[in-house]
Amino acid sequence: MAIENARTFPEFLIREQVEARLTEAGASEASRTAAIRAMIHASLVGVDSHGVRLTEHYCRMLGGGRLNKTPQLGVEKRGAGSAMVDGDHGLGHYAAYRAVDVGIELAQEAGVGAVGIKHSSHLGAAGAYALAGAEKGFVTFATTNTDSMVALFDGAQKFHGTNPLAFAAPVPEGRPWLLDMATSSIPLNRVLLHRSLDLPLPQGVAATADGVPTSDPHEADMLLPLGGVDYGYKGAALAGVATLFSALLTGTTLDPDFIPMYGGGDISTPRNMGHFVLVIDPDKFAGREMFLQAIGRYLESLRGSRVREGGSVMAPGDREWAVMETRQTEGIPLDPDTVRFLGL
Amino acid sequence: MAIENARTFPEFLIREQVEARLTEAGASEASRTAAIRAMIHASLVGVDSHGVRLTEHYCRMLGGGRLNKTPQLGVEKRGAGSAMVDGDHGLGHYAAYRAVDVGIELAQEAGVGAVGIKHSSHLGAAGAYALAGAEKGFVTFATTNTDSMVALFDGAQKFHGTNPLAFAAPVPEGRPWLLDMATSSIPLNRVLLHRSLDLPLPQGVAATADGVPTSDPHEADMLLPLGGVDYGYKGAALAGVATLFSALLTGTTLDPDFIPMYGGGDISTPRNMGHFVLVIDPDKFAGREMFLQAIGRYLESLRGSRVREGGSVMAPGDREWAVMETRQTEGIPLDPDTVRFLGL
Repeated sequence: MAIENARTFPEFLIREQVEARLTEAGASEASRTAAIRAMIHASLVGVDSHGVRLTEHYCRMLGGGRLNKTPQLGVEKRGAGSAMVDGDHGLGHYAAYRAVDVGIELAQEAGVGAVGIKHSSHLGAAGAYALAGAEKGFVTFATTNTDSMVALFDGAQKFHGTNPLAFAAPVPEGRPWLLDMATSSIPLNRVLLHRSLDLPLPQGVAATADGVPTSDPHEADMLLPLGGVDYGYKGAALAGVATLFSALLTGTTLDPDFIPMYGGGDISTPRNMGHFVLVIDPDKFAGREMFLQAIGRYLESLRGSRVREGGSVMAPGDREWAVMETRQTEGIPLDPDTVRFLGL
Repeated sequence: MAIENARTFPEFLIREQVEARLTEAGASEASRTAAIRAMIHASLVGVDSHGVRLTEHYCRMLGGGRLNKTPQLGVEKRGAGSAMVDGDHGLGHYAAYRAVDVGIELAQEAGVGAVGIKHSSHLGAAGAYALAGAEKGFVTFATTNTDSMVALFDGAQKFHGTNPLAFAAPVPEGRPWLLDMATSSIPLNRVLLHRSLDLPLPQGVAATADGVPTSDPHEADMLLPLGGVDYGYKGAALAGVATLFSALLTGTTLDPDFIPMYGGGDISTPRNMGHFVLVIDPDKFAGREMFLQAIGRYLESLRGSRVREGGSVMAPGDREWAVMETRQTEGIPLDPDTVRFLGL
């Protein structure tokens, strides 16, 4: 998605300034290191909505008290393959990366590690955590529920969040297979962008306050689930899967019950957000070698498959890694507000 | 989906005849019991394409040698939370239900049980296995890859199968939360039905042999992934998730490499299909009681949420349970070929 009036800066410079701002805001070294890693990931792969532009928001929340500046994570092993991580109301990235590490430890013994996370907060892009597991050689699933913003199928109120499902898997060479998808068709930011540009939205991605599908970005009040007007019951149910794993299993906050991330008056009460991470060790199934051979063959066959005229076929993650390569060379584009806040 | 020239029969009568045909075809008691359970489930909840109409197909495959009449399942525990089930090339339902049982045993100790299945075959509706876990009190995920039939995003060949993702969860009262979704928008049967009725298809659900989206059922040669023309990269990636878990982790057959389920000349070679089941014990996260309270509140809030004019909001499974209630009272509709084959 295009950023208006963007200026680009090299990653290292941005990283320094994000670090400086989070340090001033009082975030502990461990928690800010995690947040920076996740934000830089998102900014590099082009998920700008979850990238370093969130630094200002997190700093406000650290100042307001919603976020604990010096969280002490708790890890409770609940079974040979299961654990709960207590985020102690710090930056969600910290708890989520820890959950991946815990999941890997469990998976190395049990074959699988399922880790619920409670007392957490916004974790940025869920894909960052799936990726962290895959980079260490594990098939990894990460999900979270988020603030209500998406209608149910045939619904007329914001119910689920854009509830992402993220999966990643190691490949024999190169960067992991990576899927990080919202269970709505588009993110809310897309509506805001189309509103500011006065451009119509695609069909079946947003609805008015009465739940009537609309392509007018000014009328759009909520998002519609993936699958649109005909098959949105699938997207709505997938959003429910995110809630099932992240909130129901962990005993944390339901999507409609969150204190608003933005725009509410309350920035001092923790939101008790939940997430869920699942880590699988390929060695404990058909074996790592066979797995890597299989995914290699699968990706080769996928990338070599017949393409529709004018189109191109990519594996999940290919687009992101291409953006990453560009941005590592040419810099990361930032909006003017973020440039100002970071002091660039 | 309407069945043409259907006649309805009570469940017990159908069950008897399916049992008789599978017995004549030589299927062992254990394997046919599993197949009947899964087919009756599908027929009762309205997934007729995966219901008792498949009896004839399975009987042919038992006769041809593709399916082992007397499979001896193998279970290899690979870690405290992981196992592989070897289906011994029998009816896939048998291996898949066993995998759920194995998953439950693992989950009760480890908190989670991840079970890969190899040397299996068509398992019918994946939802049957997610449901089997949920009925015993466990959050359960079941998936399989299937014969190539769905284009990639911008693809011009059949690549993934309709690769279902099925999730189910126990609820405090009543029948489980149940999602059993293909990762295409529609099943192939829908195309065939529209072809026979000469009715146009919805937009963005099927494509010509060149991958060009078409609503002409006679021109349609492959299905498009969930998300359609604009967001089909999400559905394609979800189909890849099914393949990742079912085939890549288990070392079994990739979607494009399957001996065709139907219509190929070879009905004597086993297809080595893989599936995957994940079972989670809520007790090993926030606790069973808290989980049941939370999902109860979630469903109450969902079912009581505001509805778009002319629509109705349902939880995943609600539609299926309503169909089940009707069919348990009024009987299960069967197409003429199935009526004939079953001898009804």
